[in-house]
Amino acid sequence: MPFKDSKIMPVNSEGRMGESNEKINSKMFEKKNNQTEEAGTGQYSDLVVRAGLAEYSDVRGCMIIKPYGYSIWEKMQAVLDKMFKDTGHTNAYFPLFIPKSYFSREASHVEGFAKECAVVTHYRLKNTADGSGVEVDPDAKLEEELVIRPTSETIIWNSYKKWIQSYRDLPLLINQWANVVRWEMRTRLFLRTTEFLWQEGHTAHATKQEAVEEAETMLDVYARFAEDFMAMSVLKGKKTPYERFAGAEETYCIEALMLDGKGLQAGTSHFLGQNFARAFDVKFSTKEGTQDFVWATSWGVSTRLIGGLVLVHSDEKGLCLPPKLAPIQVIIVPVYKKDEEKLPVDSVCREMLLKLKEEGIDAAYDHSDTRSPGWKFSEYELKGVPLRIVVGPKDVANKTFEIVRRDTREKSFVPVQNLLSAVKDLLQKVQENLFRKSVEFREKNTTVEENYSHFREVIEERGGFILAHWDGTAETEKKIKEETKATIRLIPFGDQEPGKCIVSGNPSTGRVVFARAY
Amino acid sequence: MPFKDSKIMPVNSEGRMGESNEKINSKMFEKKNNQTEEAGTGQYSDLVVRAGLAEYSDVRGCMIIKPYGYSIWEKMQAVLDKMFKDTGHTNAYFPLFIPKSYFSREASHVEGFAKECAVVTHYRLKNTADGSGVEVDPDAKLEEELVIRPTSETIIWNSYKKWIQSYRDLPLLINQWANVVRWEMRTRLFLRTTEFLWQEGHTAHATKQEAVEEAETMLDVYARFAEDFMAMSVLKGKKTPYERFAGAEETYCIEALMLDGKGLQAGTSHFLGQNFARAFDVKFSTKEGTQDFVWATSWGVSTRLIGGLVLVHSDEKGLCLPPKLAPIQVIIVPVYKKDEEKLPVDSVCREMLLKLKEEGIDAAYDHSDTRSPGWKFSEYELKGVPLRIVVGPKDVANKTFEIVRRDTREKSFVPVQNLLSAVKDLLQKVQENLFRKSVEFREKNTTVEENYSHFREVIEERGGFILAHWDGTAETEKKIKEETKATIRLIPFGDQEPGKCIVSGNPSTGRVVFARAY
Repeated sequence: MPFKDSKIMPVNSEGRMGESNEKINSKMFEKKNNQTEEAGTGQYSDLVVRAGLAEYSDVRGCMIIKPYGYSIWEKMQAVLDKMFKDTGHTNAYFPLFIPKSYFSREASHVEGFAKECAVVTHYRLKNTADGSGVEVDPDAKLEEELVIRPTSETIIWNSYKKWIQSYRDLPLLINQWANVVRWEMRTRLFLRTTEFLWQEGHTAHATKQEAVEEAETMLDVYARFAEDFMAMSVLKGKKTPYERFAGAEETYCIEALMLDGKGLQAGTSHFLGQNFARAFDVKFSTKEGTQDFVWATSWGVSTRLIGGLVLVHSDEKGLCLPPKLAPIQVIIVPVYKKDEEKLPVDSVCREMLLKLKEEGIDAAYDHSDTRSPGWKFSEYELKGVPLRIVVGPKDVANKTFEIVRRDTREKSFVPVQNLLSAVKDLLQKVQENLFRKSVEFREKNTTVEENYSHFREVIEERGGFILAHWDGTAETEKKIKEETKATIRLIPFGDQEPGKCIVSGNPSTGRVVFARAY
Repeated sequence: MPFKDSKIMPVNSEGRMGESNEKINSKMFEKKNNQTEEAGTGQYSDLVVRAGLAEYSDVRGCMIIKPYGYSIWEKMQAVLDKMFKDTGHTNAYFPLFIPKSYFSREASHVEGFAKECAVVTHYRLKNTADGSGVEVDPDAKLEEELVIRPTSETIIWNSYKKWIQSYRDLPLLINQWANVVRWEMRTRLFLRTTEFLWQEGHTAHATKQEAVEEAETMLDVYARFAEDFMAMSVLKGKKTPYERFAGAEETYCIEALMLDGKGLQAGTSHFLGQNFARAFDVKFSTKEGTQDFVWATSWGVSTRLIGGLVLVHSDEKGLCLPPKLAPIQVIIVPVYKKDEEKLPVDSVCREMLLKLKEEGIDAAYDHSDTRSPGWKFSEYELKGVPLRIVVGPKDVANKTFEIVRRDTREKSFVPVQNLLSAVKDLLQKVQENLFRKSVEFREKNTTVEENYSHFREVIEERGGFILAHWDGTAETEKKIKEETKATIRLIPFGDQEPGKCIVSGNPSTGRVVFARAY
């Protein structure tokens, strides 16, 4: 029952907040006075930069993913890629460039995607007349401008037209790992950047039912990844028509609650109906010999998930990475004062490193002479390394070592002979504890509101997820968004209790989840 | 001694050609009359398309890498990535966009790279007045144009400036897996496309010697990959100044000989001196307390390698993939006539599939009812699957199966109980045989020429690698290129025998390798 905990179970229906570490810390990731995220000075960006995950480049809104941040992405990719392949998908690669005219094919898609994007108009630079630099060669203007892909439905469906003739060619289950570009006005490292890395699945099916099931299956894959690997509790549901992907008939999503009380959309899976098949004229001969348009899905997660890890597990010391995705799972730090103590301590540390690595544990040994143990402790806490092993001369004598959990900061002393079992056991405990805390946090900070003025108070003062009745109209949805900055994050799956809209008083078929969101 | 065979050892110094399958087939990959590669109709492109590796997109010179082709790239990536990590490198990700002005910083780099490239000038589209489509919004013009990276030295060294202060920050050993764009006038699937996928390593060092050693180490990694995994014999050496990477002080390369007698540059590793450090003002404090510019290397291989696999191992039946990189290593095909034979045959095939997969062998079972066994045999030969297992009713009765090698087309009958050992043994034999053939082919088709008119005859009539004396001037190099279309592929490492240039008669310090090349 991997998703049991992600069902909506507000344990506290009066809206009271939990205590201690389950409380929303609305200042946790706030921006500093008069400083913009773009400059990398907000608390969140500051943490991302200090932990060595990423930094802004000189190119507006584009980030540099540094080795430590990229290692997390590699671990995420490895897990997700396996999950995709285990569900029958293969990878392919489609061009970065999309002819401008493709965007005009699917009416709502063009509204959503063809606007804020990078446009290539020329294919050559030349030396300036004064020889000081280069300039765009006006003679090298493209006949049709090319858009850098903001998402690849159009270029992929243009290919699917050639690949699909018969029901025998279906289903077509393809995924792509790629970079995409959306010209965002306000950017934040990982959460919203002009260029980002992602995967986009694009599937084609013979029946509506099969396509809907595919979209649901991939949402389940995302939810399982979020919970079992990121240790991040998520809600599952569908978007309102207003919040839907441009061109989709239904958008399913997973939504997580960040420590500052804001929601984060962590993955979406779209049932696209026959919209793209119609736009690109992709028909197939059915088993019965008739012709029909193909049914489609698309689904994606991105480097935004790394931002989610930061916003859901950090504390005042820095990151707190779930062991299953931590680039370094165990850091070994030697502690000695006298020169003659160095050699025996170093020798024990190296032996431990080797043993851990042989077991496939991502251990590292920081034997640098230029940094003090105290500096190292802080540094690896900042970087969120799940376990720290400390070895000093006394430990060498006693054949023990100290091991410290990053999540609870609990210390224990362990006999060297129990190294592997202790490390494995603690890694699992940290993973489980982070997830348990994330579930409790979401539950404690999910409230049910029946009254709009109280709703506004809660949104303003403490955030979190709010379950409230809504009349199903875009009008009410927009009014709430304008007045409170809260949006409908999702409509929960399954039967809900009917009621009356907290704004209009009109009938509601069930409560939906509101939050301010990233 | 992994590179023993890649030393230049022309076994046949009179220039006689080898026989049978070691002979150059200059018609093998020729273009059909009046047909362009762009249309995908040349023999090479035709094979790439028919085998399901890739196809052209509607966007000029951009290809779609189809699942089968992408699987080869994934296998290449996995091996190379491990080799990079084993030699101390980590991955990171830098932006797709490079501000135009960056290219002006390094004088020779701008000449080489800032010319034929995709330029982003605008960041928004808007609806046309008549509502029929979208057009570039003239109000959304960028202040400074952005170039889509053709290679990332400039944007990466702009970051290294911030990352490197002291010798303690060195060496910095970073690799990036990315897409790059070069606006090529003539394109060929995999070999030369406008957009391609590659990896680019960018390292920074405290000393010249360390940087040179790094560039050499990475060339060795590439050579080992080409020979041990691609089963493709390569020569190692350095480029002439004229053929060097723009901005490099020395370019090392591996060069392979294709079945049609043309050379293929399969990987390059550049010693960049202090050029980029000077251009981006990257200095560091040395151990001695002085300030110095940082020393640099860069190195890369690309999806072009997939083209190399096609051009070096194919025959009249199609591809012939080396087992270590084949997406499908073993294809199982059932053969039966009567309905009642289907079940027992199917059951044995499924059991075999499971056993092979459990051993980590990439096996597949084609149980499709809509295609005949004969069609399947041809299809998997075309796709270059190294081994084919055929199971019929007689095999079921005899507890045997038929196994056929793709490279030699030899058949054997094997008891089912020997499945794993037979498959493993044959996979290794196919891998070794492909490499051995590649070495022999290169050796047989490498000639030594002392006379320019004979040189021209050989180039024109049969191609291959030609070892000849050259006076070291760009003038002679260009003359030969213009008159014969042959270029200097590399200057071999190590001491060479001095002599006289075949064109000018001036002194030469040693023979260099000429060929017409892709």
